[in-house]
Amino acid sequence: MEESSISIKPRDVMPEAARTLPARYYTDPALFRVEMDELFGRMWFCAARSQEIERAGQFLVRELNGYNVIVTRNAAGRVNAFHNVCRHRGTRICTEASGQFAGSIQCPYHAWTYDLDGRLIGAPHMEEVPHFQKPDYPLLGVHADEWDGHLFLNLESQPQPLGAQLGSLVDKFRDWRMSDLRLGRRIVYDVKANWKLIIQNYNECLHCPNLHPALNRLSHYLSGENEPLHATYMGGRMDLRPGVETLSTDGSCPRAFLPGLSADDRRRVYYYAIFPNMLLSLHPDYMMTHTLWPVAADRTINVCEWHFQASELAKDSFDSSDCVDFWDLTNRQDWHVCELSQAGISSRAYVPGPYSNREDLLHAFDRFIVDFHSRHEG
Amino acid sequence: MEESSISIKPRDVMPEAARTLPARYYTDPALFRVEMDELFGRMWFCAARSQEIERAGQFLVRELNGYNVIVTRNAAGRVNAFHNVCRHRGTRICTEASGQFAGSIQCPYHAWTYDLDGRLIGAPHMEEVPHFQKPDYPLLGVHADEWDGHLFLNLESQPQPLGAQLGSLVDKFRDWRMSDLRLGRRIVYDVKANWKLIIQNYNECLHCPNLHPALNRLSHYLSGENEPLHATYMGGRMDLRPGVETLSTDGSCPRAFLPGLSADDRRRVYYYAIFPNMLLSLHPDYMMTHTLWPVAADRTINVCEWHFQASELAKDSFDSSDCVDFWDLTNRQDWHVCELSQAGISSRAYVPGPYSNREDLLHAFDRFIVDFHSRHEG
Amino acid sequence: MEESSISIKPRDVMPEAARTLPARYYTDPALFRVEMDELFGRMWFCAARSQEIERAGQFLVRELNGYNVIVTRNAAGRVNAFHNVCRHRGTRICTEASGQFAGSIQCPYHAWTYDLDGRLIGAPHMEEVPHFQKPDYPLLGVHADEWDGHLFLNLESQPQPLGAQLGSLVDKFRDWRMSDLRLGRRIVYDVKANWKLIIQNYNECLHCPNLHPALNRLSHYLSGENEPLHATYMGGRMDLRPGVETLSTDGSCPRAFLPGLSADDRRRVYYYAIFPNMLLSLHPDYMMTHTLWPVAADRTINVCEWHFQASELAKDSFDSSDCVDFWDLTNRQDWHVCELSQAGISSRAYVPGPYSNREDLLHAFDRFIVDFHSRHEG
Repeated sequence: MEESSISIKPRDVMPEAARTLPARYYTDPALFRVEMDELFGRMWFCAARSQEIERAGQFLVRELNGYNVIVTRNAAGRVNAFHNVCRHRGTRICTEASGQFAGSIQCPYHAWTYDLDGRLIGAPHMEEVPHFQKPDYPLLGVHADEWDGHLFLNLESQPQPLGAQLGSLVDKFRDWRMSDLRLGRRIVYDVKANWKLIIQNYNECLHCPNLHPALNRLSHYLSGENEPLHATYMGGRMDLRPGVETLSTDGSCPRAFLPGLSADDRRRVYYYAIFPNMLLSLHPDYMMTHTLWPVAADRTINVCEWHFQASELAKDSFDSSDCVDFWDLTNRQDWHVCELSQAGISSRAYVPGPYSNREDLLHAFDRFIVDFHSRHEG
Repeated sequence: MEESSISIKPRDVMPEAARTLPARYYTDPALFRVEMDELFGRMWFCAARSQEIERAGQFLVRELNGYNVIVTRNAAGRVNAFHNVCRHRGTRICTEASGQFAGSIQCPYHAWTYDLDGRLIGAPHMEEVPHFQKPDYPLLGVHADEWDGHLFLNLESQPQPLGAQLGSLVDKFRDWRMSDLRLGRRIVYDVKANWKLIIQNYNECLHCPNLHPALNRLSHYLSGENEPLHATYMGGRMDLRPGVETLSTDGSCPRAFLPGLSADDRRRVYYYAIFPNMLLSLHPDYMMTHTLWPVAADRTINVCEWHFQASELAKDSFDSSDCVDFWDLTNRQDWHVCELSQAGISSRAYVPGPYSNREDLLHAFDRFIVDFHSRHEG
Repeated sequence: MEESSISIKPRDVMPEAARTLPARYYTDPALFRVEMDELFGRMWFCAARSQEIERAGQFLVRELNGYNVIVTRNAAGRVNAFHNVCRHRGTRICTEASGQFAGSIQCPYHAWTYDLDGRLIGAPHMEEVPHFQKPDYPLLGVHADEWDGHLFLNLESQPQPLGAQLGSLVDKFRDWRMSDLRLGRRIVYDVKANWKLIIQNYNECLHCPNLHPALNRLSHYLSGENEPLHATYMGGRMDLRPGVETLSTDGSCPRAFLPGLSADDRRRVYYYAIFPNMLLSLHPDYMMTHTLWPVAADRTINVCEWHFQASELAKDSFDSSDCVDFWDLTNRQDWHVCELSQAGISSRAYVPGPYSNREDLLHAFDRFIVDFHSRHEG
C-alpha cells in the first residue's frame, strides 16, 4: 500500500502555549473528587446495554463514586434505577452484580420488600408503629434512560434530558442502528491510569505507527478527519486502507456489513469519546464500546464490549475472534502506555510538554478540563 | 409448634423521631478514633479467659488501638499485664501471640530482662552508666482483673474497679458458674463492619425469621424479654420452644445442663452485650462468648468461643459440633448482613431509617453512642 | 578464646539526658517526608556500583522519593543520569530495571528519541509545529558521579561535589582499592522499619552476644574502636579474634586478602555508615555494601551486595557462600530486631529509653537527626 493512496488532511498549527496539563490533574485526589462529583455526578453516563435487562425484574448493579445503584426494568418495560440501600437500616440489598428479581426486591436483613418501581410493599412489624407509613419509604431513585440500545444513568436530582446531552450524536449515528446490535464479547481491563489519559490516548493516532503497527497497516494514522470538540463529546473518523474491509486480524470481514451504512461509512471507522465515560468505535460490521469506571485518580476500570448484528451472532459459523483479538492486542498496548504516562506524570520531575498538530483534540479536551475545574474551584 | 404456645410480651412504641444513626457514626475514622480512645481506652474490655494463662509465666498478647499488651501470671497467681515495649530502645519483646516465659521476660535485642512483675532485673553494660538505676525502668503496666473466669484489661491509668463497671451482671449470672467452664472451640471471624453494627445485630431478633430460620425453629423470635439499657451493658433473654433443650443443630442437648441453673433458666438463652467488646450468650449447657476487636471504622475482628463444663469436655464422647455448627452458621449469616449494612450505610445515598418496636435496644444503644460522642466533641 | 586476649577500649560515659528519640522520628510520615526531601534529596546517595553500567548505553533505573531516574553511560564513558520522563507527554520511558540502550533512548508512546547525553534527536511530526525546537526538550538531568567504583546520584540542582561530601573517607579507604572489586552476590531485603533504625542497628555491637552468637565468636563485641561522628558519616572498626581470618561461617578465609592492606587492616573489619543511605563493611578479603531505599516511615528496601577481587571471582573454585551465608544470617537477625523496634516504638506506650556507653554513635546520630529536623521545621 502506498502512502500516496491515503488522503491526508493537514491540521491547524498548535498555539505556541499549548502544553500538556500539570501533573495534579492526573494525580491529585482532590481534583479527582471534583471530577467525580461535578462531572460524572452531573452528566449522564453510559452504564450498560439495554439488552442486559430485557425482561421485567432483570437487574444489574453499578458502582460509581460512592454510590451503588440497582438498574432493573418494570413489568411495563420501563427502566428503573434505585440506590441499593434499604430504607430500614441501610442494608445493601442486591449483592450480585446482575440477576433476576422474582417480582419484587427484598432486603435480606429484615425482609423489607419493594416492587419493581421501588415502592415499599412489605415491612414486617412496622404496622405496630402507628406513625409509620409505607409510602414514605420507597427506594431512592436514580434517573435512567436509553439511547439506541445504550443505557445511561444520571445521579443528579433534576438532570437535563439525555437527548440534550447527546445533541447531534443521535442523528449522526442513526444509520448504524445500534439498538439492533447484540453483545458478542466483553473484556474488563483494570488500568492503573487516570481516566482522562485513556480518553486522550483514544483521541489521537500519532502513536499508532510506533505502538500499533498492526492497526497502522489497516488504517493509516494520518487518514480521516476530526470534528472540533463539542460540549459533551469529541471524535473523528479514520479511513480503512485500500483492500481492507474492517479492523480485524487480517483486515478481511467475515460478517455482513451493517445494513444501514452508506458506501463511504463502510470504508471508515468512527471513534467518539462521549463524555464522561463512553468510547464508541463504529466499524463497518460491528460496534466496539468502552465504558470507563474511575476508581481513583490513578486507576480506571475499563469495560470493553464488541457488539454484532443478531443475525450474525445467530450463525453457527459466527466467530468474533478476528476483531476481538485485533482490538484486545491494541487495547493492551494502549493501556500499557496510559500506565506509563500515569507513572511518568507522577514523577516529581514531570513538566508539561508540547503538543503536535495531530493532538488537536487532546489540547481541546485539556482546555475543557481546565475550564471545568476553574468553574468548581473552592 | 404453634405460635399460641409462645409467650409474647409487647414492646413499647418507638418514638416518632427514632431513626438509625447518620452514616458518619459507622464510617468516619475520626469518630472511630474517639470511640477507641475514650470508650475502649477507658472501659474494662474482655481480653481472654483466665484459663489461658493458668500457670505462672504463661502469657498471651493482645493488640488494641495502637497498644500491644502482654498478659501473664506471676508465681503468686496474680494476673499482670504490661506494654510489650522494652524500656531500653523500645523493642517489641514478645513476638508470639501466646506462650510460656521461662521465669522472666527477656528482650531479644540487647537482653534486657524483667521478672513476671515487670521489674527490670538485667540490663547488660548499663552498670557502666553511673546515673542508671534499674528500678527506674520497669515494664509499663496495664490494669488487669478477672470476673468469674473472664479476664479483663483497662488501658486507663486510674480505672474504676472492674466490679463497678460490671454492676449487677456479677450477681445476675452467678448461677452459671462461668469460672468453672473451659474452652471447647474458638473461631475467629474477620468482619468488614463497624463494631457497633455487630452489637446492634446481636440485640434484636426481628431479623431471625428471614435470616436464621434454623434459630427461629428452636427459639421464637418474639419470645422472651429485654432489660432496659444499663450504663455498661444491655441484653435480654429468649425462650426455647417447647421440646427444644438447647440451641444446637437439632435442638437436643447431648450434655448435662449447667449444675446451678433454675428450672426457668434451663428453658432460656441469655444474650448480653457487655460494653465495649463482649457478647455473652448463656445457654442451659454451654456459654458462647464473642469478643470484638475493632481494627478500623469498617472492620472488626470477632473472636467466638464455646465453653463447656470440664466434666463434659473430659468425656470420650464429648462432641461440640451440634452447638458449634449451629452457631457458626448463624454467626456467618449475621456477619454477612452486618457487612451488607456497612456497605449500604457507606453509600452516599444512605439516609437514617425508622426503627420498629422490636428494635428498642438498638435505639437505646444509639442514644448511648450519640451521648458519648456529644461528651467528647472537639 | 579468652576475653583477656581482647583489647577493650572503654567508652565515654553517656550524658544523663541521653535518651532514644521520641516515636515521631520513626513513625510520622511528615518527618519522613522532610528527611526524604531535605536529606536524601540534597545529599549524594549511593545508587549502584559503576560496573553495572560499564558499556556505553548500559542502563539501570533507580526510584527514590517520587523520582524515577535512568542512569547510563555515554560513548565517552561518562555516567549520565536523567529523569525517566519523556518531555512530550510525560511518559515513563524505561520500564525495565536495567538493560542496554541501542545507541539512543526512545519513548515507547510517540517515539520521541534522545541520545545518550539526553539530547532530543527525534520527535515525529513536531517539525510541523513552527515554534518547536528540539534543543528545548532534552531529558532532564540528575547529577551523577563515582567514588572508587561506587556510583552516586544527587537530586539537587546545584550540589556540592561528591568528594566534598565524602571528605576523609576517600583517603581512609584507598588501600582497599574498591574500584577493583566486582559483584559476587546480591540479596534484597524488604525491612518493615524506618531507615534510621537500620543505621542505628549497624552502629553498635552491644546486641551481638545476644543476637549474633556466631558473629561474636569471630569478632568480640567489645573489640575495636569508633570514630566520633563526622558531618556525613560515622563508623568504626572491630578486631577479628585470634585465629579468625575473616567473617565467614567458620572464620577461615578461602580467598586471597585484598592486595593493598596493611597487616593491621587484615585483622580488622571496618563498618561505616555513609549518610544518607550506604553501609560500607570492609573485610580483609571482601567488601559488603548495603544501600538503603526508604519507602515509607516504617519500610526500607535494603540491597546487600558482596564484592570480591576479580581474580578470585574468575577462579573455578570460587565460592562466596562462606561469607554470604554468614552475613545473610546476621542480616536477617538484624532486620528482625529492627522490625521489632519499629513495632515497639509504634506502640502508643513507647517512651524514650536510656543509652549505654556502648551506644555512643547512636546518641551522636540522634543529635544529628534532631539538629537536622530543627533546621527544617515549618
